[in-house]
Amino acid sequence: MLDTTGKSIFCKAAVAWEAGKDLSIEDIEVLPPRAHEVRIKIAYTGVCHTDAYTLSGSDPEGAFPVVLGHEGAGIVESVGEGVTSVQVGDTVVALYTPECRECKFCKSGKTNLCGKIRATQGKGVMPDGTSRLRCKGQDLLHFMGCSTFSQYTVVADISVVAVDPKAPMDRTCLLGCGITTGYGAATITAKIFEGDNIAVFGAGCVGLSVVQGAVEKKAGKIIVVDINNDKKEWAEKFGGTDFVNPTELPEGITIVDKLIELTDGGCDYTFDCTGNVNVMRDALEACHKGWGESIVIGVAAAGKEISTRPFQLVTGRVWKGCAFGGVKGRSQLPGLVGDYMKGSLKVDQFITHRRPLEDINKAFHDMHAGDCIRCVVDMA
Amino acid sequence: MLDTTGKSIFCKAAVAWEAGKDLSIEDIEVLPPRAHEVRIKIAYTGVCHTDAYTLSGSDPEGAFPVVLGHEGAGIVESVGEGVTSVQVGDTVVALYTPECRECKFCKSGKTNLCGKIRATQGKGVMPDGTSRLRCKGQDLLHFMGCSTFSQYTVVADISVVAVDPKAPMDRTCLLGCGITTGYGAATITAKIFEGDNIAVFGAGCVGLSVVQGAVEKKAGKIIVVDINNDKKEWAEKFGGTDFVNPTELPEGITIVDKLIELTDGGCDYTFDCTGNVNVMRDALEACHKGWGESIVIGVAAAGKEISTRPFQLVTGRVWKGCAFGGVKGRSQLPGLVGDYMKGSLKVDQFITHRRPLEDINKAFHDMHAGDCIRCVVDMA
Repeated sequence: MLDTTGKSIFCKAAVAWEAGKDLSIEDIEVLPPRAHEVRIKIAYTGVCHTDAYTLSGSDPEGAFPVVLGHEGAGIVESVGEGVTSVQVGDTVVALYTPECRECKFCKSGKTNLCGKIRATQGKGVMPDGTSRLRCKGQDLLHFMGCSTFSQYTVVADISVVAVDPKAPMDRTCLLGCGITTGYGAATITAKIFEGDNIAVFGAGCVGLSVVQGAVEKKAGKIIVVDINNDKKEWAEKFGGTDFVNPTELPEGITIVDKLIELTDGGCDYTFDCTGNVNVMRDALEACHKGWGESIVIGVAAAGKEISTRPFQLVTGRVWKGCAFGGVKGRSQLPGLVGDYMKGSLKVDQFITHRRPLEDINKAFHDMHAGDCIRCVVDMA
Repeated sequence: MLDTTGKSIFCKAAVAWEAGKDLSIEDIEVLPPRAHEVRIKIAYTGVCHTDAYTLSGSDPEGAFPVVLGHEGAGIVESVGEGVTSVQVGDTVVALYTPECRECKFCKSGKTNLCGKIRATQGKGVMPDGTSRLRCKGQDLLHFMGCSTFSQYTVVADISVVAVDPKAPMDRTCLLGCGITTGYGAATITAKIFEGDNIAVFGAGCVGLSVVQGAVEKKAGKIIVVDINNDKKEWAEKFGGTDFVNPTELPEGITIVDKLIELTDGGCDYTFDCTGNVNVMRDALEACHKGWGESIVIGVAAAGKEISTRPFQLVTGRVWKGCAFGGVKGRSQLPGLVGDYMKGSLKVDQFITHRRPLEDINKAFHDMHAGDCIRCVVDMA
């Protein structure tokens, strides 16, 4: 095998040249990792709504040209100076929520958000302010510190975690975002006690992962709310106890009314996995007076705001949210992979579609169809 | 002394005949307490913004004629059948947040809200659906289950607590609302750790009580935000470390910017004690990313809504609220009275004005002047 250490690698990647256009499969140059950087050969990547949101042009912080993708698994090809957290050959998952273990956030013990490289990650560059991705004579931007829609990518050493090498990468890639986000929201951000009633709005990968987490925590009623009746079967498959389609309620009965009725006063926890701010309000108001907590997981469109009467809070409801499920990637993701390997965390069941890299645009179309939970893209 | 047990008592009360008008001192009839009711000879009452809000007519649930007042202390005159929680002669404080110890809420261990008599209390009647207050041939409504603007009142036995008889009632009356609401928000609803930075919006009785609670919890910076510069001295008196007048910030600097700067990233806890929904938003957004919690205490005007971008929650801020500071009246108020008697809870310092019952309308005017923290009305 050719030693590529310290050299540029030329490979295929799906490049987003501009907003609103399909991705374009290009030959790109991936520069070698600098100090505290890791170059990964990506084996598989998921396609997530956040990729589609940025590609659509609706994200005001979205910039182009860029290599999207943030749900990827692969093998460490080489490391820059000073990297100790992973080694060449490690099987890894990329982390869009890094974990430096040094910043105020990481040391607080209260959050999984890490502040170390937030500014540069948000601008689409590596921590030193430059890019490792080039195509047709110009720099490409990185995305969410990951850029997994490339056969090779470079990430900060705090944005990657080694996991069990026996775990199949076409599964573990999904732990890089969707599954972990929902499962973590239910098992880490929420403090679900046995018998608690919960409601999940939106039965995609994230919502079904919340259901899975709620089952793990022995929740009582696990009510799935979705406007697509085909999701009823999916909800049941993951352990949902009830399914409500809010568009099919009798005249004059709101989804809030219905959930309060089903739970004798309101839910102990609700989860928004839709990104729709009106749904977020319903999710809050369907919480039990006195203690119900609503957790916002979905990403809202730019400029959208959530609203409610403050009386909802004064009477004891709590409005919170989380990113990446509150999971600390480097500390906690290996455990989730372990749970998968032991059979206690479902992952395979989320994969409804598979595509080769050259068909990645079809994966975006798959995602918008009602029958897709997750499409895994094979980067080989 | 004439035995009044089982008989109507005729006494003075301040009656609110209609919205927007001054109270009228009337001779009223106070019927004897029925089963599980307690008749109290009110010695002192505070006057609170909630009384003024209902009197103004802005409260859509406000109904007339009514005897307002919910911050009162007195002596039990007689009790109805089945009352075991207090005895004739007990020194008591009326509780607008009852505690039945039997309902789902009381038994949850998660909230101080009690559901037992909520519906009838909201309608201004006793739990059996009738009134004990009469004047000029008609029933008067009760208010917040208390109606302390009367020399005698009748309350449910779950809406009253006996306290140390040595504690002066012109002080303990204030523990019936304002002081407890703020102090409880800081010491029970919030989980302030030593060194945490907090901000309090609005330096009235409630806000200054939050400051007092934060001092008790050894908070770091205790920043008081008020548009009245005279409150700076008050803030310092109770232990505030910083004072910010948001109307005096340099052009382009918002109160959120200022608080984030003062606290190197945002507050660990913020408290709205204004009831202004725009202030509530600022209070949330001034919280530290990752973990800051904002607690809504103030009562907003009818129909007003709070708003923010959901990103504020997804990045770890928490929006919650509390009523009566999260304090369980029957279980916890005697302890607060004890703290006052030991000298560890300031109460005297809040009393800036005193009025006899016949001047109760002046107490409302006092409240709207900037130099009043609390006016205590002597019911004798």
